[in-house]
Amino acid sequence: MTATERDAVAPPVPAAVECPLDEPTLDDLRRRTSVKWRAYPPDVLPLFVAEMDTPTAPFVADAVARALAIGDTGYDLGTTYAEALAPFAERRWGWTPDVASSRTLPDVMVAISEVLRVLTAPGDAVVVTPPVYPPFFAFPRNEGRHVLEAPLTADARLDLVTLADAFQRATCGGPGGGPGSGRRAVLLLCNPHNPTGTVHTRAELEAVLALADRYGVRVVADEIHAPFTFERVADGSAAFVPLLSVAGSERAVVVHSASKAFNLAGLRAAVALGGPGAAEDLRRIPELAGHAVNHLAVLAHAAAYTEGDAWLDALLGGVARNRALATRLLAEHAPAVRVQAAEATYLAWLDVRDALPDGVADAQAHGLVLERARVALGDGVPFGSGGTGRLRLNLATSPAILADGVRRLGAALAG
Amino acid sequence: MTATERDAVAPPVPAAVECPLDEPTLDDLRRRTSVKWRAYPPDVLPLFVAEMDTPTAPFVADAVARALAIGDTGYDLGTTYAEALAPFAERRWGWTPDVASSRTLPDVMVAISEVLRVLTAPGDAVVVTPPVYPPFFAFPRNEGRHVLEAPLTADARLDLVTLADAFQRATCGGPGGGPGSGRRAVLLLCNPHNPTGTVHTRAELEAVLALADRYGVRVVADEIHAPFTFERVADGSAAFVPLLSVAGSERAVVVHSASKAFNLAGLRAAVALGGPGAAEDLRRIPELAGHAVNHLAVLAHAAAYTEGDAWLDALLGGVARNRALATRLLAEHAPAVRVQAAEATYLAWLDVRDALPDGVADAQAHGLVLERARVALGDGVPFGSGGTGRLRLNLATSPAILADGVRRLGAALAG
Ligand SMILES: Cc1ncc(COP(=O)(O)O)c(C=O)c1O
Ligand SMILES: Cc1ncc(COP(=O)(O)O)c(C=O)c1O
Repeated sequence: MTATERDAVAPPVPAAVECPLDEPTLDDLRRRTSVKWRAYPPDVLPLFVAEMDTPTAPFVADAVARALAIGDTGYDLGTTYAEALAPFAERRWGWTPDVASSRTLPDVMVAISEVLRVLTAPGDAVVVTPPVYPPFFAFPRNEGRHVLEAPLTADARLDLVTLADAFQRATCGGPGGGPGSGRRAVLLLCNPHNPTGTVHTRAELEAVLALADRYGVRVVADEIHAPFTFERVADGSAAFVPLLSVAGSERAVVVHSASKAFNLAGLRAAVALGGPGAAEDLRRIPELAGHAVNHLAVLAHAAAYTEGDAWLDALLGGVARNRALATRLLAEHAPAVRVQAAEATYLAWLDVRDALPDGVADAQAHGLVLERARVALGDGVPFGSGGTGRLRLNLATSPAILADGVRRLGAALAG
Repeated sequence: MTATERDAVAPPVPAAVECPLDEPTLDDLRRRTSVKWRAYPPDVLPLFVAEMDTPTAPFVADAVARALAIGDTGYDLGTTYAEALAPFAERRWGWTPDVASSRTLPDVMVAISEVLRVLTAPGDAVVVTPPVYPPFFAFPRNEGRHVLEAPLTADARLDLVTLADAFQRATCGGPGGGPGSGRRAVLLLCNPHNPTGTVHTRAELEAVLALADRYGVRVVADEIHAPFTFERVADGSAAFVPLLSVAGSERAVVVHSASKAFNLAGLRAAVALGGPGAAEDLRRIPELAGHAVNHLAVLAHAAAYTEGDAWLDALLGGVARNRALATRLLAEHAPAVRVQAAEATYLAWLDVRDALPDGVADAQAHGLVLERARVALGDGVPFGSGGTGRLRLNLATSPAILADGVRRLGAALAG
């Protein structure tokens, strides 16, 4: 089955849970004070940053209320996070994380920074696979690491050729490099991949792990979008392949968080997990890195993992429906826009290069659409190679808002 | 008036607000899952880590519930934090922070790390004034900075002699140092001071700023305990002196947070503020440092600053009463323990060196008390010079629990 066919397969929506995307109205949403609703003036329709227009999930609100009711607002301790993730990962992906070696950390990007700090030194290289979530460039650079690009293929798949080239440069070339130089390197994967919605297959991950091993490159995967994988395999579990379930992942590290799937960017937490050969590395993350963990966030994320399946399934159904809607409306209102077929995430990655009016440079797509149609999509430029002339559309909203956004986009490109 | 006399002056308790320390029972408290209640087995009475045994303040619970009700759980943006702090700082300390140059950050220690990263380079020195909050050692070291100690006087006051010596070493001596070496240095103050409860006076701060200026040392103050200052001056405001209100503080940086005074360690946020000569430094804190901010925590802290005065005053009254109670019971049950007179914080700093049984080394005080009497106080050793043989007692609990703790301490020391 092709990626496009996969796209049409919505997971079953349990009758008891309404799709949480259908509830809030634009008036409700504009009362929010987060980036999505405050970064632009009120006449701009915001469909950019990865916040969802869902109401707070009831089990999250309950967990927070329970903690506040007993004054449970002190410092976090222990492995609560991984203990809640483990049964969720078993149910949904057939993978059992090693709770004992887990490290609870304040959020995903801080976790990745901490992992990079133990696996590499300043001056070492971090290989990323653009187009990719822009902080994948900023956070390694902030730690003094060089970022090397190994772009995805035109199909948005991992590319062993660009990867081998980047591994070569990361471990041999460059200042201070060369065999025996002691240079270490990390491949930072996004699994599933933001912005393209690619779910890396087991075969792809196995090949990449083997290649990395040949160069002595350690593999780290950000799996924050894992709960957002659409395709279901025969047993009802999702096609998402946890990196640590793949042969050759003994020394790999992954980071998980409930903050995307349950819209908890403002109540942040994450967990780093490793294969048996990475347990010692995780132990070397300094204790003070856990100081910044929000205990209330840990309790909220734990409730999401424990009680969130039906809500998440209803949400996945709504996002799949919205993805089909956006594809249909784009074909109608902006037929020159190419939509990346996605297997995961609530993001749609749009190639608008052939749809821009004459004289508009690819890099100006975001500004053009914002100015002409007052709709804010995610600008592709900061996503690195393969980002220019692309826009990222957030599908996690009501069908009405999404339709308005796509129509505005069409009008901006037409006019 | 002496520090001991000051101690007895409780702020007025508004009739409408009950002292929040009197509410939870030990059974209630043991349902909490934070460090204070989970680090030790259930037979240990925990009076160590700086969590309070207050219930959640009602205005905090309301702010969180309001945000959850509208799904306001996305990314934080802007200067909400400083805007809420500013009127609080004006009301309570007569100081107006510069909101425009403020940076909202995930928590106090992360804020201090970020400030150290812009003001110094790896290998530079950070001067601290022990005994002091142990993360003041760990966080600078984690950024590759050298920590130099300039111990407080025996009276727990800032010591210009040890400071001048440390500034000399920080800017001239040591590897790579010497005039023109480009070495930069920071003095990291705790204002008010944890663990001694010292409120630095305007004259002391002015002298320290002038001395630091002479050596080209930048001053950074952690003012997290500021809301916890007991003495009131004639106009009803507290005797706490905000560093940025002191002459010569143009280039100083301070960090504030509501998380100690309102018990929000598990819902963390903080703000860095500077004098006019530090605004450019604050701008150089990378944008990604704000990525980890918890929007829900910002809303909770903002509510605390905006609506929390009466609750805080009632709490201060309770802590002052508990401090007097602890002093009285210690005199009765452990007369050889010397109690540091404190003007701020909910911590009591106990010198138990003369109270230890024969043959027990000063450094074993914490373990002795824990083993013999099953009460966990804060171990003084990690607080640096002047910490060995001291224990830190958390006063923010009910009088009954506090009395039990002091009696247990007395029993352990008696033999
Ligand atoms: C791939 C990826 N990683 C991380 C994050 C954010 O994680 P956190 O906010 O916990 O740093 C996002 C948010 O959109 C993301 O898409
Ligand atoms: C002086 C001081 N700074 C900072 C903190 C903690 O701040 P945060 O948890 O926001 O890092 C404490 C906690 O007790 C403290 O006493």
